[in-house]
Amino acid sequence: MYNMKILVAQLNPIVGDLDGNTQKILESIEEGKRKRADLVLFSELTICGYPPEDLLFHRTFIESQTLHLERVIKASKGIAVMVGLVRRTTEHREKHLLNSAAIIDDGKLLGFQDKWLLPTYDVFDERRYFDPGQELSPWEIRGSKVGLLICEDIWQHAGYAQYTRYLRDPVMELKKHSVDFLVNMSASPYQFQKPDVRINVCKKAAKTLKCPVVMCCQVGANGPILFDGYSIYVNKEAKLCQLAKGFEEDHLLVDLKKDISPCSFSYHDMENLLSALIMGVRDYFRKCGFKKACLGISGGIDSALVAYIAKRALGCENVMGVSMPSRYTSDQSLCDGATLMKNMGVECMEVSIEEPFGDFLSLLAPYFEGKAEDTTEENLQARIRGIILMALSNKHGYIVLSTGNKSETALGYSTLYGDMCGGLGVIADVMKTRVYALCRYINEREGKEMIPQSIIERPPSAELRADQKDLDSLPEYTIVDQVLEGYVENYLSIDEIAEKYEIPQEIVYSLVEKIHMAEYKRRQGPPILRVSKKAFGVGRHYPIVQKWI
Amino acid sequence: MYNMKILVAQLNPIVGDLDGNTQKILESIEEGKRKRADLVLFSELTICGYPPEDLLFHRTFIESQTLHLERVIKASKGIAVMVGLVRRTTEHREKHLLNSAAIIDDGKLLGFQDKWLLPTYDVFDERRYFDPGQELSPWEIRGSKVGLLICEDIWQHAGYAQYTRYLRDPVMELKKHSVDFLVNMSASPYQFQKPDVRINVCKKAAKTLKCPVVMCCQVGANGPILFDGYSIYVNKEAKLCQLAKGFEEDHLLVDLKKDISPCSFSYHDMENLLSALIMGVRDYFRKCGFKKACLGISGGIDSALVAYIAKRALGCENVMGVSMPSRYTSDQSLCDGATLMKNMGVECMEVSIEEPFGDFLSLLAPYFEGKAEDTTEENLQARIRGIILMALSNKHGYIVLSTGNKSETALGYSTLYGDMCGGLGVIADVMKTRVYALCRYINEREGKEMIPQSIIERPPSAELRADQKDLDSLPEYTIVDQVLEGYVENYLSIDEIAEKYEIPQEIVYSLVEKIHMAEYKRRQGPPILRVSKKAFGVGRHYPIVQKWI
Repeated sequence: MYNMKILVAQLNPIVGDLDGNTQKILESIEEGKRKRADLVLFSELTICGYPPEDLLFHRTFIESQTLHLERVIKASKGIAVMVGLVRRTTEHREKHLLNSAAIIDDGKLLGFQDKWLLPTYDVFDERRYFDPGQELSPWEIRGSKVGLLICEDIWQHAGYAQYTRYLRDPVMELKKHSVDFLVNMSASPYQFQKPDVRINVCKKAAKTLKCPVVMCCQVGANGPILFDGYSIYVNKEAKLCQLAKGFEEDHLLVDLKKDISPCSFSYHDMENLLSALIMGVRDYFRKCGFKKACLGISGGIDSALVAYIAKRALGCENVMGVSMPSRYTSDQSLCDGATLMKNMGVECMEVSIEEPFGDFLSLLAPYFEGKAEDTTEENLQARIRGIILMALSNKHGYIVLSTGNKSETALGYSTLYGDMCGGLGVIADVMKTRVYALCRYINEREGKEMIPQSIIERPPSAELRADQKDLDSLPEYTIVDQVLEGYVENYLSIDEIAEKYEIPQEIVYSLVEKIHMAEYKRRQGPPILRVSKKAFGVGRHYPIVQKWI
Repeated sequence: MYNMKILVAQLNPIVGDLDGNTQKILESIEEGKRKRADLVLFSELTICGYPPEDLLFHRTFIESQTLHLERVIKASKGIAVMVGLVRRTTEHREKHLLNSAAIIDDGKLLGFQDKWLLPTYDVFDERRYFDPGQELSPWEIRGSKVGLLICEDIWQHAGYAQYTRYLRDPVMELKKHSVDFLVNMSASPYQFQKPDVRINVCKKAAKTLKCPVVMCCQVGANGPILFDGYSIYVNKEAKLCQLAKGFEEDHLLVDLKKDISPCSFSYHDMENLLSALIMGVRDYFRKCGFKKACLGISGGIDSALVAYIAKRALGCENVMGVSMPSRYTSDQSLCDGATLMKNMGVECMEVSIEEPFGDFLSLLAPYFEGKAEDTTEENLQARIRGIILMALSNKHGYIVLSTGNKSETALGYSTLYGDMCGGLGVIADVMKTRVYALCRYINEREGKEMIPQSIIERPPSAELRADQKDLDSLPEYTIVDQVLEGYVENYLSIDEIAEKYEIPQEIVYSLVEKIHMAEYKRRQGPPILRVSKKAFGVGRHYPIVQKWI
């Protein structure tokens, strides 16, 4: 019996905003009624937003969800609803909570279904909070036999559950029941080139169950974790038929009765990455209640990219560039920075650090006596810039955007409390080589030289001493990024990396050593928008004090 | 058959230092042979050190442990050994690793036993890495039937496993087998007033199994997590008979044949706390390869306490105080700071921030036009001090010690990139009221006014504007600390806290709001030595972007 019309409510919840999220849920239910849908389907943990983390340890946080569920139940007269929430279990279990879905029809709660497979890897930590669900059987809704799975429950079957081989396969469990169709309530984070993976997961389940699959995805950023949306409808022939929008809220009306022809989905991975980063900045500001950002404009490529993302996310009127030249800043950098700001229509102020730099050098001279110049003087400049940005932030309510990329962040090629200052590490999960690719793409999509070509072409430099180039102390970024990909993203050994990428072993070793040595810096860096399979920050837990390489 | 002599090797491993840790293990085995012990017992994950975190995802990290185990097996001629390590399982399990113990006798590996109960709460995250063990039966060693449990395995039985009610009780499982004695390999972190809890856990198992219990504990700090040692021997009457030293390596020889009389254990909780903090600083420096520390000396109580801890941990010749007065620094503060440094025999340099503060104010004046003075100017001073400390650190190789306490850290009463600078948050898990208690205790134990009485008695002030007092913007610290205890350490609701401590609800609410608002600052703070049941940093995962209170 596919006789059902489903409204897939792809929402952007704020973690912990039970009231606001419930309001959105109620509006979607109204929308469902207007569209004459039989069922409104929501994403995982709809009421509290994903991921709620240790808020789950507050008893009232759990109790409030039950109260908000009552509102949802009341609003569901004449329609069926599947909504996600956390509920307490009174059974004797290891933990006391369940990651659950409430199944509601016509103002009545039919029951709950709990998530079976609890991801505990990368950014996921669900065993910290939840017990796995124990029962899994279809729901009888308006004459249909509906299989319901929560996020990870559908992934194991496709072999995509990372680092984990669960002992149970919920899809196979449902196969015994021959369901009419399967729905999945998901909060699956974005990462580069990921969107079509989810479609394959749905297709695999459709193939096995020989029935349509509808997946409702969370959208929006909650801190460092980005959700790209793209809710999915795959028909019983395992063909993609409908897809919700990426990176924004959407209501997708799926009519299982209708025989609609398969559609195709192709996406531009760079456009997608850009959208993810823009959404990350926009949601961080909106959800925290901020409006305006400032950032240091060095005339280099990283700050150029972040400025562009900020302008797209917040509007050029809400972004302030701050150029902070020193004796080591080249005319070219100044000129490139100015051109960039002009191209983007973003205001830029100039505050020279020359005076405070000189002042600090004199102040500290007695304590530096007999010591040669070293990175101290370089860090000093970066930290003076940090102070200036933070002072402007404090006085004018700007949030400082940090401009470090993933390659620098990996190697510690940055100054703690200096250029690492900021509320958000916008591109700290984007490797340097991809920063270049993104900037080239931006100029292509804008159809003009938004980011001046000379910024893209000049050899990168921190300009913290005379004639400094990144290449003086680091290998080519193509090499750095291969080692990062091998070591950080794929846990390859030094030998394996050397062999795979044909890089001399001692270079791999010295880069890996740098990655470990910089752990203490990263621990104090800003939250990083996660766009790769393994970002620094959330999802990567390394000891600072350790001796292994 | 209690016919056995056990050498309990209470070691201080460095995470990831497989070579160094194995060297220690081999030395302990030699010591066991010298002492004519039958069995040498080690703590949990002896070879890699606890907690190894994501190093576990590197295949070679696991393989190396097996290689080091071979060395241990070879060295065990004529003696039995129980040593902890991580091993890979080839069975079809969720994860691929086991938290395991190797049981060795006379140069032969008898087998492995895996941890059943995997803690996944607070600082523990073992479900991220390990599968639970499946088999549990006694080991036949030299005619004795030995029960072996790994850390958490023994805790469930005493009802002390936090936040978790495991479905299996390994102690009851062993009861079926009536073992001759029980050993436990542990890595149980220190927290205030915890040491005797472990003794109770051993007694409970001894009572149930009607046999002696020997627990080997890890000692030393690995980053923020402190292990206090105090390995335990409880006889079959469930009486404490022997205890290893606290806060240092020790070899405890337990002769089960001998009928020794019960001993008593009492400890001074303040002395214990002090020892934990001193060990935390000492091990951080030693294990990272640093020698010298510097810290800002404000003349206030927090920096006084940290200076004392640093002096005890590193020796006064390795600590440098830095006094950084401004126009708002009182003579009393300067004088108190100088007296403190003199009392402790610690050198102190003075760098006035008056000039750079004035310079920055002029530099920024054009950008501050029309705006009133506010916290910007206060933060500026704190950040200038941060720059100075970091410059001295960079030039002279000092590690900056951060002096913020837990109450400030909770409320965000601190400046990011300012007084929050540093490699280690020494007392950031010690509430302000306990800072006072510790300082009073220090003067008592030293038998003299090591910390000047006026530092202890003056009302606390950040001295960032004229006549500023903490009490201008915060309630009394006794109230702040009660709210912290209730909300952060015990997850009480606002209502419950208001009732329990008799604090007006609006004050509780506003403090809880501050705690949530300061999450973003804490995320960028230094690692914090954990001494309470719930420290900020490790073991507490809150979203920055969230709307719940």
